[in-house]
Amino acid sequence: MAKRLMFEKPLGMRDTLPFFYNQKQKARQRLSDSILSYGYSFMDTPLMEYHETVGKVSATLDQQLFKLLDQQGHTLVLRPDMTAPIARVAASQLKQSEFPLRLAYGGPVFRAQQAEGGKPAQFEQVGTELIGDHSSYGDAEVIALLVESLQDAGLENFVITIGHIGFVKAFFSDVLGEDEETTETLLQYLYRKNYVGYREAVKTLPVSEDKKQALLQLLTLRGGEEIFGSSRSLARNQTCMQAVNELKQLFRLLKDYGVEQFVQFDLNLISHMDYYTGILFEGYAPNIGALLCNGGRYDALLPSFQLNASATGFAIHLERLVEALSEQADEDDRIGIIVDDDTYTNGIQKAKEWRLQGHSVLLQHRDQIPDVSAFKDQLSKTIDLTAEGGADDE
Amino acid sequence: MAKRLMFEKPLGMRDTLPFFYNQKQKARQRLSDSILSYGYSFMDTPLMEYHETVGKVSATLDQQLFKLLDQQGHTLVLRPDMTAPIARVAASQLKQSEFPLRLAYGGPVFRAQQAEGGKPAQFEQVGTELIGDHSSYGDAEVIALLVESLQDAGLENFVITIGHIGFVKAFFSDVLGEDEETTETLLQYLYRKNYVGYREAVKTLPVSEDKKQALLQLLTLRGGEEIFGSSRSLARNQTCMQAVNELKQLFRLLKDYGVEQFVQFDLNLISHMDYYTGILFEGYAPNIGALLCNGGRYDALLPSFQLNASATGFAIHLERLVEALSEQADEDDRIGIIVDDDTYTNGIQKAKEWRLQGHSVLLQHRDQIPDVSAFKDQLSKTIDLTAEGGADDE
Repeated sequence: MAKRLMFEKPLGMRDTLPFFYNQKQKARQRLSDSILSYGYSFMDTPLMEYHETVGKVSATLDQQLFKLLDQQGHTLVLRPDMTAPIARVAASQLKQSEFPLRLAYGGPVFRAQQAEGGKPAQFEQVGTELIGDHSSYGDAEVIALLVESLQDAGLENFVITIGHIGFVKAFFSDVLGEDEETTETLLQYLYRKNYVGYREAVKTLPVSEDKKQALLQLLTLRGGEEIFGSSRSLARNQTCMQAVNELKQLFRLLKDYGVEQFVQFDLNLISHMDYYTGILFEGYAPNIGALLCNGGRYDALLPSFQLNASATGFAIHLERLVEALSEQADEDDRIGIIVDDDTYTNGIQKAKEWRLQGHSVLLQHRDQIPDVSAFKDQLSKTIDLTAEGGADDE
Repeated sequence: MAKRLMFEKPLGMRDTLPFFYNQKQKARQRLSDSILSYGYSFMDTPLMEYHETVGKVSATLDQQLFKLLDQQGHTLVLRPDMTAPIARVAASQLKQSEFPLRLAYGGPVFRAQQAEGGKPAQFEQVGTELIGDHSSYGDAEVIALLVESLQDAGLENFVITIGHIGFVKAFFSDVLGEDEETTETLLQYLYRKNYVGYREAVKTLPVSEDKKQALLQLLTLRGGEEIFGSSRSLARNQTCMQAVNELKQLFRLLKDYGVEQFVQFDLNLISHMDYYTGILFEGYAPNIGALLCNGGRYDALLPSFQLNASATGFAIHLERLVEALSEQADEDDRIGIIVDDDTYTNGIQKAKEWRLQGHSVLLQHRDQIPDVSAFKDQLSKTIDLTAEGGADDE
């Protein structure tokens, strides 16, 4: 085969070399320990599902789904997230379990990529699903656990921004009434975080100056708990009021958990056009320019699998977390033992002893090493038992 | 969508519920610890590759590859094993590393399935690749590490059966000469472990009685080190003799490792028609009727990626290992704390204390529990802080 093709991978697919693998494994382990400490149970689902089954109810936009045709002509998707598959399992095999259910996962998810050198087509999410708890207590647990998990993974500097889709929708419905086209346009600007475009669009709307002012004031509803006051004054109907009250209660509960300093509010936040039904949140770390984690309440998902249960959860983008941690490489602490035919048996015994003491020991016959000095240099310490080796090296 | 489709998964795809997930995780961790103790570095590759790149050089038969078409019409494969992808990486991104390379992996691999209720389309392999060591010392390390990994995972009863493809091929070439069709037919019987069919086929061959006897005697070359003697008498050329000597040396080295009681020899063993180039092995546990692990030397794989290096390694089928272990379920040791509005803050503090002590603690608002008594029953211990709860439960 041609050399070019020989080493090529499908668009956006990446190898994970040992150094990054170890960093990921360490972060995964710490997140997992935190999640287990909250009584969540880990589970897994297949990497591939029918488009019909989970593709259509997933939070991932259809054009981002990694779709494939199997040999029978079915449309399959590489799972875009774990939330829809876990909902499928919760609504079938786990239907008889005691609710609320606390489930967790960690594994690869996929996005179709259109361009080389862009985003990854495969990345790993670690996350939780709290199914059957429709209270703010549930939302608070999910956010508190997210904060503690990130802290336990070693991340010091991050912000979880919380919004409420119920507020946004009721607000627009109040101001713009039945004008769905304008509502959709403005929501799209917010979804894309294009606040300049939003302002321009509001200015040209054929609505009263009052309403324009209200639409522009929405953009100011970002910050700490001080925004609850101004949100109330902008909340002109019952649904908006209720959403603000929910956020207030949530904040009180987050204070009980002692995680309030990691939390901000943003009533412009729209992580998804249709998926979330209540609070929703996004997490960012200042040293990476991309979404680190997100989640929220999606009470409509389980009903689409014929189970009348609410749900809330979070997902952490593991590779981005590792980038945000940007830890130094651990020193390679492997010990090498170099042997020849005569010293092999002795080498095996030495290796066995040290392994029992918890060391990582690499036993190697000298004849098979192309460059002995470079071979030794990669290890923390090498014992050369061969005649050529002479004394021990450090 | 129709209820039937709603919960359906592609053929052979399975969910991993919490109990089995935990068993797998425990086994994976123990295997991984053993492998790390031998100085191997874990890495990962994408779940999906071009058929052109790794599908064609994989040890998996083409009809078992899980092939898919992407939206540009390329034929992709869900990776059938990790050996070919790791060879791709070793021959490109890791080409400048110090050889011999010791690499390891653990992750899902795929097989196309034609029938419902049959074998899984996705399962997990944990394995190693020792690249650049063409000695028996390398083969011995791989087998010793395999035995120790299985033992560390908790498996007591298993056998690794070792063969040598070089012996088999040279033997047939010596007896049957250029008759490739007959050779292929007989090798296929051995590959399928159909010894009755092999005997029948030998009986009807148009060759001398001497040769028939030799072909039938091949079947007796199974057992402990005592077969080396009879193998030598059947080994009528230099290549056969050399293969027997290699196996003898390997056995001596395995004795140095102290793992000889887990090893048998079988000079009829053919795990694959074309892949292996030297010793090869298969591992079985008596309580499961399927291959538990396998491996061997495949010195032709790296050259197909233009790297002149030999390779040897093993792969363990993780789900089958878990079945072979058939451990009892760990008791659910989660502690529950049931709270209401008044006792929530108190509950959070208690939960925090216990989590710091290493417990897994599930904090739950009583209003969200459909069946409090069943909810308590699933946990090892529940503290009910609500007025209805009365005293603490055990």
